[in-house]
Amino acid sequence: MTTQDTGLLVTFEGIDGSGKSTQARRLAERLQAKGHEVVLTREPGGSEGAEEIRALLLTGDTNRWSAETEILLFTAARRDHLEKTIRPALAAGKTVICDRFADSTRVYQGATRGDLRGTVDSLHQIMIGQEPDLTFIIDMDPKVALERGLARNSGEDRFEDFGLGFQETLRHGFLSIAHQNPERCIVVDGNRPLEQVGAEVLAIYEERA
Amino acid sequence: MTTQDTGLLVTFEGIDGSGKSTQARRLAERLQAKGHEVVLTREPGGSEGAEEIRALLLTGDTNRWSAETEILLFTAARRDHLEKTIRPALAAGKTVICDRFADSTRVYQGATRGDLRGTVDSLHQIMIGQEPDLTFIIDMDPKVALERGLARNSGEDRFEDFGLGFQETLRHGFLSIAHQNPERCIVVDGNRPLEQVGAEVLAIYEERA
Repeated sequence: MTTQDTGLLVTFEGIDGSGKSTQARRLAERLQAKGHEVVLTREPGGSEGAEEIRALLLTGDTNRWSAETEILLFTAARRDHLEKTIRPALAAGKTVICDRFADSTRVYQGATRGDLRGTVDSLHQIMIGQEPDLTFIIDMDPKVALERGLARNSGEDRFEDFGLGFQETLRHGFLSIAHQNPERCIVVDGNRPLEQVGAEVLAIYEERA
Repeated sequence: MTTQDTGLLVTFEGIDGSGKSTQARRLAERLQAKGHEVVLTREPGGSEGAEEIRALLLTGDTNRWSAETEILLFTAARRDHLEKTIRPALAAGKTVICDRFADSTRVYQGATRGDLRGTVDSLHQIMIGQEPDLTFIIDMDPKVALERGLARNSGEDRFEDFGLGFQETLRHGFLSIAHQNPERCIVVDGNRPLEQVGAEVLAIYEERA
């Protein structure tokens, strides 16, 4: 990437408990400490409207939505997030760091309803279009990640309420996305101390930005 | 149409104040009185999840959604309505009478953001698919319809808060849909006494069912 007028969109992806949210926050803090203007955000959510849609997806009886309706709601939330938060920040030259983005929808749907992967891609192409400039995939042994994820007890455990086999499927989904998008995606080994992972993330960001 | 195992999906469309909701209810009552099993429903809404999405669309600051996000939310609500209410009823051999369906999205988006009409059609094709067996388009002079619509004061006046010129554009949108889908759509002149319109709707239904 070369120096440009608009900011960079950097996303963090990985299975629950992989430490991606921590790493997203750390990178934001490091860049802010260096004087960069940074917007740290997350999906689903990240804008007022998208947070309302997030509440529909993650609270109440979450089984009330079919996979198809879920994809539409995730895409609606992403569209709002993109319009209200991401694009204005990029246009103002800020770095946007987002905890989960379209890759999560691709991987979770691919793992739960593989036949809908084409639908996810079509909706993304029609309604979103935007791809990150750089995606960190924090890769981790699902056993460790599952313990961390279950221990988190966030109250929004929609995506944490799955077993080890499912987490392994998700892990392979993220690695497959990385393999298909080598220009955009960097796989970082998350099975290491937080500080070490964070130092590698920062070094890669500075090399690419 | 011929006799079949599954029920018929009958939709009512038209501008606000055209009397379509009244006619939908009347037809349902007439058919029930004749011993038919009828499900009377409406969009946006018509299922528990879709009603939650309806609340996002029609309450609060309704300008908080872009046209693109609105289309995604309408499609999400329609998908839920289709899965939870319409298809099960049709499969049980019931007649489903729906106040507004996909034609409303086509016409309202075509009138407000004509460049998104193709997007509406693509989303419908990918995520909905279902077309009504019979659509009544209740056609009415927008001046009269506007007076009726504004007088209704439903508290959900998202689509009633427009002027005469917009209502005229919508009317032509519905007539254009009817012209493009002559097998499915019947235009009924709504500028007549309620009873007369209702009698024509019932006669057409009985001829087609």
